[in-house]
Amino acid sequence: MKKIFIAMLSLVTAFPAIGGGQSAPDGKMVRLSKITVDPVRLEEYNALLKEEIEASMRLEPGVLALYAVAEKEHPNRITILEIYADETAYKSHIGTPHFQKYKQGTLDMVQSLELIDAVPLIPGMKIK
Amino acid sequence: MKKIFIAMLSLVTAFPAIGGGQSAPDGKMVRLSKITVDPVRLEEYNALLKEEIEASMRLEPGVLALYAVAEKEHPNRITILEIYADETAYKSHIGTPHFQKYKQGTLDMVQSLELIDAVPLIPGMKIK
Repeated sequence: MKKIFIAMLSLVTAFPAIGGGQSAPDGKMVRLSKITVDPVRLEEYNALLKEEIEASMRLEPGVLALYAVAEKEHPNRITILEIYADETAYKSHIGTPHFQKYKQGTLDMVQSLELIDAVPLIPGMKIK
Repeated sequence: MKKIFIAMLSLVTAFPAIGGGQSAPDGKMVRLSKITVDPVRLEEYNALLKEEIEASMRLEPGVLALYAVAEKEHPNRITILEIYADETAYKSHIGTPHFQKYKQGTLDMVQSLELIDAVPLIPGMKIK
């Protein structure tokens, strides 16, 4: 029993947000979005996503990063690493006109969408 | 001859990664690593990964980011967004003592490893 408790405690130390809802250790909200796009709409989709990300980064201080990548072997499989200052920043983000334009504009291009809440190993990580 | 050169140059401009293997439009090499860790070794694994990432970011100018996250629902499923200045920086990285310590030290903790070459939508993206 003691062993199990220590193991659980260690887990909480490594990833303190476990069970704590949406925020990372420093309050950030981090998520992976995995999107499969209709291949014949990919160019349109990418243009809308790019516009949305650029507007979000420019206009919203609480949107810390939206790092979108396409798989080389399957360019219609997109992953976005999303980092928000906190949950409030995220909620504000999804209400913005630029996000809504993207969301509504791409609804019929998206074949699947998976949202995975995540905890960063090093919350202060930056891109050089 | 000049025409052929220009045609080749245009091809390289349009698809800079053709023949170049791993690099994104601006020369960066971007990858998603998906790792499933033996749950009972997770704490050990995370400590080794953290040490490796911190050393890489500090010592290697060509390692631009190693953003590691654990899924909240499955803390032993790790995804790392890896960004290198170019393929040379990546090759140098995997030869470093800190990477080799991590790699060899975690071999028996890793249940699965998937390396997915990727292309960033906005290569200049930073984390605020």
